[in-house]
Amino acid sequence: MDAISVIRTKRDRGRLGDAQIDWVIDAYTRGEVADEQMSALAMAILLNGMEREEIARWTAAMIHSGERMDFSTLPRPTADKHSTGGVGDKITLPLAPLVAACGAAVPQLSGRGLGHTGGTLDKLESVPGWRALLSNDEMMDVLRSVGAVICAAGDGLAPADKKLYALRDVTGTVEAIPLIASSIMSKKIAEGTGSLILDVKVGSGAFMKNLGDARELASTMVGLGTDHGVRTVALLTDMSTPLGLTAGNALEVRESVEVLAGGGPADVVELTLALAREMLTAAGLPDADPARALADGSAMDHWRRMIAAQGGDPDAPLPTARERHTVTAPASGALTKLDAYAVGVAAWRLGAGRARKEDPVQAGAGVELHAKPGDRVTAGAPLLTLHTDTPERFDYALEALTGDAIGIAGDAEGAAFAPTPLILDRIA
Amino acid sequence: MDAISVIRTKRDRGRLGDAQIDWVIDAYTRGEVADEQMSALAMAILLNGMEREEIARWTAAMIHSGERMDFSTLPRPTADKHSTGGVGDKITLPLAPLVAACGAAVPQLSGRGLGHTGGTLDKLESVPGWRALLSNDEMMDVLRSVGAVICAAGDGLAPADKKLYALRDVTGTVEAIPLIASSIMSKKIAEGTGSLILDVKVGSGAFMKNLGDARELASTMVGLGTDHGVRTVALLTDMSTPLGLTAGNALEVRESVEVLAGGGPADVVELTLALAREMLTAAGLPDADPARALADGSAMDHWRRMIAAQGGDPDAPLPTARERHTVTAPASGALTKLDAYAVGVAAWRLGAGRARKEDPVQAGAGVELHAKPGDRVTAGAPLLTLHTDTPERFDYALEALTGDAIGIAGDAEGAAFAPTPLILDRIA
Repeated sequence: MDAISVIRTKRDRGRLGDAQIDWVIDAYTRGEVADEQMSALAMAILLNGMEREEIARWTAAMIHSGERMDFSTLPRPTADKHSTGGVGDKITLPLAPLVAACGAAVPQLSGRGLGHTGGTLDKLESVPGWRALLSNDEMMDVLRSVGAVICAAGDGLAPADKKLYALRDVTGTVEAIPLIASSIMSKKIAEGTGSLILDVKVGSGAFMKNLGDARELASTMVGLGTDHGVRTVALLTDMSTPLGLTAGNALEVRESVEVLAGGGPADVVELTLALAREMLTAAGLPDADPARALADGSAMDHWRRMIAAQGGDPDAPLPTARERHTVTAPASGALTKLDAYAVGVAAWRLGAGRARKEDPVQAGAGVELHAKPGDRVTAGAPLLTLHTDTPERFDYALEALTGDAIGIAGDAEGAAFAPTPLILDRIA
Repeated sequence: MDAISVIRTKRDRGRLGDAQIDWVIDAYTRGEVADEQMSALAMAILLNGMEREEIARWTAAMIHSGERMDFSTLPRPTADKHSTGGVGDKITLPLAPLVAACGAAVPQLSGRGLGHTGGTLDKLESVPGWRALLSNDEMMDVLRSVGAVICAAGDGLAPADKKLYALRDVTGTVEAIPLIASSIMSKKIAEGTGSLILDVKVGSGAFMKNLGDARELASTMVGLGTDHGVRTVALLTDMSTPLGLTAGNALEVRESVEVLAGGGPADVVELTLALAREMLTAAGLPDADPARALADGSAMDHWRRMIAAQGGDPDAPLPTARERHTVTAPASGALTKLDAYAVGVAAWRLGAGRARKEDPVQAGAGVELHAKPGDRVTAGAPLLTLHTDTPERFDYALEALTGDAIGIAGDAEGAAFAPTPLILDRIA
């Protein structure tokens, strides 16, 4: 077995055999297959595709490259959620304590942001004292006592994926559906959850720009989960405009706490409840009532305990940025577009995100929205507020919001405008 | 400009812009673009192709990565030949002194063998005392005094190609026609020859297995040469069976000397004369008569002076291998096949070639043929003689010659058999 023959098989549109896949993943993890060989293979996979059986074996080999966790000793059924990433996507923050309040255990191993999408851990780290890094024992303790934990994945889970993901990031091979699906699912299956709800984002602010690609990715992942005994359902949800009214770390925590207090933007509440119902049903708790758990304060109670269990102070004031800049509506009429990618890039440039893995993020930076598509806006009234500790970046952030990032229509056209539905499809 | 955007352009079937190409070649040579990024780009080029303008710019950027030589101070017109590589292809050895004897200057920068094809420098190093490494000044001195020189290319010519070729070799991206064409032509154009004859091999023992691919490669290279002011012609020649009756270093030198002495196998003589006529015509010497230069001893005289000018002793006995093994014909009839690739692999395994760049070669090792396709053979009579200093490798070499490497037909079928013509096409 050698790397060149594996690369040639896929390059020449062949199907990789089980032994080829097992060998190349293992040899890459050990460093015998070099980065330049794996990147050539990744490009061949991106361009020539993989059959379902190949993706299944590739995923299994990545799971096999590391340790597997086991939640079977917990007294509750486990349910996990994964989002493919979007702008303003803070759903994990209210969702995990909400689902725990309804009786499931939620082991939410999360990541950091890279590029224009934020990361759940970066957001929670704006809570004073909160720690993302837990040992496996600490994680199990929080799961037992609170029912929900949000923390960084240990190095032991699917190390092949960790190495391959970093390689894809710098070689233009991120957008390969077989590799996206196996990357997500290898980590989630190794983590050992009993059920998994996937939130596959579609639109300008997401990896998947169109519904067809998103459906293919969703059904590939649902198939992989099901084959490994994980009850898996995917919702396809709109990411053409940011979720909620904030994009940025502390800004999104604040909005999440509003939702847990029974308020918050309608779209964040709608998606939180829809995902919670899917998770509870998949976990065997179809009669649980997440709307009541938001209303009666039990979700908020679980949030406070979860934050405190990881060293955070739920009562501490959240950090705010030193400087603000208001963007006003350029015309009166119906807001027809507030582009998710443009807002994501602006928030990133303001300091909410990082350009390289080792960069720090600003807790208070980001973009606050004062209207959403479908709302009426008035010329000269505030449309967005930009937040940053580094005001010299305002111009750079504003650049992202020019062109057709913002759309305002006159009365006739505006009356005919209907925003894209939030939940586009369900794949089980 | 960054590597990922260049990779994405080609990945998404776009055309690379001039600035992208100039930047990526320069940045790769400087080490700013990493190997894993260049290999992903090479795979995207292999699978999605390049337009003629892209290949031209890519070639120009590789030339620009290093120094250019200049033969304009020589009193004679320069003519060079490049073969894409085959089994038993010793043509450069008689050809260079022959063309010099007819009045052109032949600056033949050659390479070493890797894999199943031999290298011109490895062959000549079996001549006692002969040196492949010359300074630029030494090379010009030999060109002035003898008219022909065969030596190693300096590190200064197209260093981007040197780095990229080594990368392609380990990443399954050798077989990209745009990259093969730009690799060969960047070195030949940087070398500064006035005219260039390409011998594009087709068949089992060559890179190009079919005539269509070979034609595409040939016309791409002829276009590149012409665009850079080098008079370029390509012959497409058969490589389904070895050239001549020997494959191996000293064995091929011996056969080359036979040709220079007016004898030698008919196919080697035919191809040497055909290439010599093309070179002389391209160099503006269409009335020169290479057949007479073989017959009257002037080609041999130039050979002896060329060898001596580089420290070699043209009268010294050539090395021979310590052990021999005879393969006999398994049946009587017409020999219809003696597969070039099989013979090349056998010679390689006997020690004539190397598996890794740093391996030594055996001067005496190789395969000697006692018949060629079209000849009548008798069961039990010698068909091949294997030569090696390491007789423990006989079995490994014989393995390459099993299966359908050798074909012998009965009388009816044998009478209908006609060998493939040696020269298949000419592209100018």
